[in-house]
Formats: sequence, C-alpha cells, structure tokens
Amino acid sequence: MTVSVGGSVDLLIPDMARRARAASRQLATTSGEQRRVALHAMADALAAAADEIVAANALDLAAADATAIGAAMRDRLLLDHPGVKKLTAAVREIAEQPDPLGEVTDALVRPNGLRVSRVRIPLGVVAMIYESRPNVTADAAALCLKAGNASVLRGGKEALHSNRAIADALRVGLGTTAVPPDAIQLIPIADRAAVDVLLEQDQYIDLVIPRGGEGLIRAVTEKSRIPVLQHYKGVCHVYVDASADARMATDIVSNAKVQRPGVCNALETLLVHQTAAPDLLPVIARALTDSGVELRGCARTRELLGDVVVPASEADWDAEYLDLILTVRIVDDLAAATEHIDNHGSSHTEAIVTADDSAAQRFVAAVQASTVLVNASTRFADGGQLGLGAEIGISTSKLHAFGPMGARELTTRKFVVEGTGQIRG
Amino acid sequence: MTVSVGGSVDLLIPDMARRARAASRQLATTSGEQRRVALHAMADALAAAADEIVAANALDLAAADATAIGAAMRDRLLLDHPGVKKLTAAVREIAEQPDPLGEVTDALVRPNGLRVSRVRIPLGVVAMIYESRPNVTADAAALCLKAGNASVLRGGKEALHSNRAIADALRVGLGTTAVPPDAIQLIPIADRAAVDVLLEQDQYIDLVIPRGGEGLIRAVTEKSRIPVLQHYKGVCHVYVDASADARMATDIVSNAKVQRPGVCNALETLLVHQTAAPDLLPVIARALTDSGVELRGCARTRELLGDVVVPASEADWDAEYLDLILTVRIVDDLAAATEHIDNHGSSHTEAIVTADDSAAQRFVAAVQASTVLVNASTRFADGGQLGLGAEIGISTSKLHAFGPMGARELTTRKFVVEGTGQIRG
Repeated sequence: MTVSVGGSVDLLIPDMARRARAASRQLATTSGEQRRVALHAMADALAAAADEIVAANALDLAAADATAIGAAMRDRLLLDHPGVKKLTAAVREIAEQPDPLGEVTDALVRPNGLRVSRVRIPLGVVAMIYESRPNVTADAAALCLKAGNASVLRGGKEALHSNRAIADALRVGLGTTAVPPDAIQLIPIADRAAVDVLLEQDQYIDLVIPRGGEGLIRAVTEKSRIPVLQHYKGVCHVYVDASADARMATDIVSNAKVQRPGVCNALETLLVHQTAAPDLLPVIARALTDSGVELRGCARTRELLGDVVVPASEADWDAEYLDLILTVRIVDDLAAATEHIDNHGSSHTEAIVTADDSAAQRFVAAVQASTVLVNASTRFADGGQLGLGAEIGISTSKLHAFGPMGARELTTRKFVVEGTGQIRG
Repeated sequence: MTVSVGGSVDLLIPDMARRARAASRQLATTSGEQRRVALHAMADALAAAADEIVAANALDLAAADATAIGAAMRDRLLLDHPGVKKLTAAVREIAEQPDPLGEVTDALVRPNGLRVSRVRIPLGVVAMIYESRPNVTADAAALCLKAGNASVLRGGKEALHSNRAIADALRVGLGTTAVPPDAIQLIPIADRAAVDVLLEQDQYIDLVIPRGGEGLIRAVTEKSRIPVLQHYKGVCHVYVDASADARMATDIVSNAKVQRPGVCNALETLLVHQTAAPDLLPVIARALTDSGVELRGCARTRELLGDVVVPASEADWDAEYLDLILTVRIVDDLAAATEHIDNHGSSHTEAIVTADDSAAQRFVAAVQASTVLVNASTRFADGGQLGLGAEIGISTSKLHAFGPMGARELTTRKFVVEGTGQIRG
C-alpha cells in the first residue's frame, strides 16, 4: 500500500490523476457515515505509524540542517511525536464535523410541474500544491475526503520523506474502509516537471489550490489549465473611526499586529480618523512600540508622534510585512479610509473600530474584502474562528469561495429535476 | 457618451478595465431599486436608438453578405426592429427580477460573542467574450448590472457596428441614473490583440466568461490570468430504464433530440436497458427516423433494428452533433449506463426515464452532471426553465457555478463579523 515511484513524470502524473478521478467517483456515492469512519481509520493509521513518520521527518530535518535552513523554516518542518498526535487529533476533528454533502436548497415547483432543486455534491478531484509544513498533507487529504473529494497532493521537496510517510499511513488507513486508498495521491518525487504535468490534467482534476508564497501562486495560476483558487497576500487594515473607544482601539490594533505577525490576517496598515488621532494615536503608538513594533507613517502621523515614526515610502502602503512593522496614516474621514483600502488592500480582511453604527454600516458596505470586521481583531479571519471548522486556506479570489474555506467550500451543487414526462414545447 | 476609440490596444484595454473597476465600486453601493431604475433607463435608451441600431446592423449584414456568410450565421447576426423590441423587453425582464444582492446567510454567534454572517455582494468586473449574436451585448450588460457588476464586453468582429450601437445606447441610458456609464464597456475595435491584453487585466477584472465555440473557450482558458467560467459542449444522454413507460420514453427522447438539435442541452446519445430494448427501441427509433434523425448504433442495436442504424464508431460516443444525428447503445443495466456517461458525458445534462424510484435515485446520485433529470427532457437544462430568470450561460466547470447561471451566479459572498472589542487570545 505504499505510493509507487517510477516511470517518467509524463506517465506517472496522468496515471495518478486518472486513479484519483476513478476513486472520486466511488467517493461521491459514499455516505457521510462511511466518510466519518474512513477519517477515523486514517487517524488510527497515523497514530500507528507515528514512529515511521517521525523517522522520515528526521531524514528531512537532517537534509535541511545540511543546507543551513533558517530556524523558522526548520520549526515549520519539524514533526515530532507530539506533532503527530496533533495531526491525528485534527483528522478526528474533521471526521466529526457535519457532512457538507447532500444538502438540498432552492427547491421549487415550476408551472409545468417540474420539481427543481439544487443538491450539494463533491467537486471531484482537488490538487493541493504547498510548501514546507508536512501537516498540510494530512489536513488537506482529510478535508478533501470529508467533502467527498479525492486529492492529489504535492508538498515541498524539503518535506518529501515526511509527506510520503504520512500519505502512506493515510492510504493504509483507507484500506479497511468504504473509501478506496486511491482517493489520496501524493506525488512521490521532487522533480519540478511534475507540477507542470499536473497542471495539464484538466480532464481529471477539478480544482488546484496553491498554498504558499506569492511566487508559487502566480506560477501555478499562469500555467494551470485547471481552475485555481488563489490565496494571495493579506494587506489588512484597521480603521479607527472618529468615535472609537481608545481602549478598544488600542486592544484591537495591538492584537491584530502583535499576537502573530507572520500570518496573512495580521494587521499591516493602521488608518486613523483625523479627529481621533490627537487623543488616540499616541496611546496606540506607545502600546505598539512597547511591543517592539516599528512604525512607518505619513507626514501627519510624524507631525503628531515625532521621530518615533519612520517616514513611509509609497511601497510601504502595499507591503505585507509579516513582521513587527506597521504603517500608519491619518485620514480625513471614513470615505478616505475606504478609498485607501480600495487602492492598497488585498481583498483579504479589513476592520473598523467605531462606536457609530452608521459608520460601521458604511464601512461594511464600501469595503470589498472577503472578511470585514466591526470592533474585532483582523486575526478572527480564520475558518475555525468563523465557525467553518477546519480550514483549507483563505481565498482572495472572488470566484467560488471568497475568504476562509472549510469543507463546504470544497463542494459544488448540481440541479436535480424531477418530472412526470414533461417535454419542452 | 460614445465609446472612445484610439490609442494602442496596450493603453486602451487597461484603461477600459480600470474605468470599469472604478464604476464597479460605485455600483457595489447602489440599492436594488437604483439598479432596477437604471435597467429600465437602459431599455428606454435602446428603444430610442432603435433606428441607429438597425442601421448599424445593416452595415454588419452588408459586410457579412460580401463574404458569403452562411444562412444560419446571417440569421444570428440579423437585428431588425422587432429584434430590438425583444432586446428591450429582455432588459426590462431582468430589471424586474428580484435583487440578488444583500442576502444574508449562515448567521451565527460564536462562543466569544462575535456575530458572523455571509452577505451576498457583486463579483466586481465581469468580462464577456462572445461570438456573432449582437443581442448578447445587451443581455450580458443587463445581467451583470443587475448583480451589481460592471462589464467589459468583447463581441465578434462581424457584429462590431451593431454591438457599438447597442453599447452606446446602454451608456446613454445610464447617463441619467445612479449607475455610472463606465459600468458598461464595449471593446470598440476588432483587433485580436485586444483579447490577449484583456486577459492580463487580473488586477481589474474578476471573472471572464467566454461564450462560443470550443476553440474560443480553450484559447481563453489557456491565456487568461483571470478566473474563467467555461461553457463547454453538451454531450447529453437519456437513459431509458427497464421499467420505462414506452410513450413517455418516446416523447422525451424525441423532444430532447428533435425540438432544437443545435443547442447544448439537446440529446446526443440514447442508452437503453437491455430488457426494455426489444419492446421500446423499435418504437422510439421509428419516431426518430420519422423526424429525419440519422441513427448510429452499437452492435446490439443494429441486431435489433437492422440496417436503419449505421454502425457507431468510437468517436461517435463523444460527439456533440448539434444536428439530427443520434447514437444509440443497449446497456446491460443502470450501472453500465452511468459508467458510459462517466466515460463519455460532458458534465452538462443527463436524464433517466424510469418508473422505478430507486433506479431514479441511484442514477441521480451516480451521475456527476450539472443538471440531472428524472422523467423530463434534457431541453429543460436552461436558466429560464429552471426558474433562475435570464441566463448568462451554462457552466460546465464545477467551480463557483455548475450549470445554468443567472444573476445570482454573478455574485459572491463576504463574511461580515460584528464584535464588541473581541481580540484573539
């Protein structure tokens, strides 16, 4: 039950995609209970293979250490016994989520008696292309399977041993269930040509999700013949309105910037209403600099706060720092704030802090982002935090799914029409 | 208020896309009533410009006649005064459809008190690339605008005068409304390079819909950096089950094949259960040949019906004839029918004729097509017939919208999160 290696990429990849598609047809007719049981079997098999997975990870770590990998990257690559336990728990959590399939909506009866409805079905085959963290292998396979999809997984070459050990375990787990092991396919070789061939398999694969840096996402988007759901950068803003409470504004801005600066829903630019700035901005700035945040500001901000603020360049307004750096701009009013967001935002996550309901409504209506928050930290833009359960990523393209994507976002709907012999006149 | 021509394609197209995006931001904040009024103003302006539109169409027809265009193509190009009246009526019908925007779903309160919901919003800017029929210019612009989207329209060069006259009228109509005229952009030149540049405008355009032949769709899909919703071919099947009523089966098969053979939801392959074939197939075949349908069949079909049936080649099972030709196959059972559909279908539309509820359920569950019908003609796979109102096309890709697409399918959803100062721990 190991993932087979061999043959040229030109034969291997189409064959994997074809087998995934065949498995997806079988998966599409499984019950929610059968998929729940299959997911627990996958978790059992992960737990049983913990030693093999940790040993495989040690090989990846040794190779990484030989190339002077950074500490952050090494940390993301590491998968120890507690890590495998977490992985197992995550798969069990997905197993226990509600079944996204079969939901019937938009039911109606047409004047000619036809009964029309829309039924939620799997997408079919989902390809994931991702970097470094080996836990994505189990998470993505489990979430795809929950939604009735087969998966073709392509992880980073630095995690290849770990990913193969995880995928082998998951497939062994499926061996005793109603779901065929071919429903999980991991590309077992590091050859970059494999991705190019993968992106041509539009007759077998329904969706590609690239997860990683902007370079990876752009390359996949430009090459792919298969629809791509992009997860681009998050240049997230908090706008502190004229009526904002000082304490709430400080807490939200600090949390959004400092709590975990390296993620896509972290704050990158603070916008402050000009009438609120004199009272609030010094307080907020002190909290931020106390936490080690570097501030880069517009001329008005520097006038107010002095040399603690570095002048912001034009490029700063579009930067996703993923670090303890924040740009700050004083704006004339809410309209100027939403215009700034329109010009520099990334459609990811935007927040307003205000005591004024009408301002909140105008902000929510004007801002075209996948998540818009009122009086809450941008860090809540996350599938788990918004109640979707496990998340496969955050889409910044508006098609299909805009924002955090859970199992339901890995489905589609078909029309089912029931008649009694109707024909068209 | 005319569409400006001039400058190189490299300047013109990005500028049009940029202006469409700016207009889309204004459109996103209009009310449903403002968009309803704007659509009626567009219809008024079309009616007022009827003479100009018909005169422009005469130029296109003259050019077409000079190149010995086929009768069918000329018919599709023709836009006379009654045609303009129909166009106007179609826009008014779209105006009176319910507003797809603002719908709030999936509302929930998280344990930390955050109120989460999803709100339906426009996609932003939709590009349509289409062939010949000039009425698409008005239909597409109106449907996009109904859903709060700006449109960038690229029609066929053979209809350029007609399309420009229609777009000019629509923009004049918007001049008196809350919707900026820039919300409708027609590419005013025939230069093919315009499409290549258009497909690079991913910073301004959210979706491309190619509508036309398979060549057009493939070319757009391969070149586009913008997400594409594909409308590929319809290789539609009717499966006549063992328990099917002879009269119902004959009516449905005849209607699906003969009523309008040149469209994507017309029947291309008939599958008949082996126990039903001896009684039913001769009756069905007679009805079809009486209507001038050429039959191409498998060996068992030819055994049963004789030389009235031409032997089907392998290629016949994948053909979209769009003509009075039908392939016929006798299958062992329902599973063989769904397997045939899995191998040869195009995910478009599939139907079963049966008196057996359990067979109907198995068929509906197994067939992965955007529309699955029980005891009704495949010709009902159409936005209007399924109750969606006007249709912008039929998507055969599973992402975003699978099957007929109305105004609602030209929208997306954002998360709106309301808090009272929540931060993440």
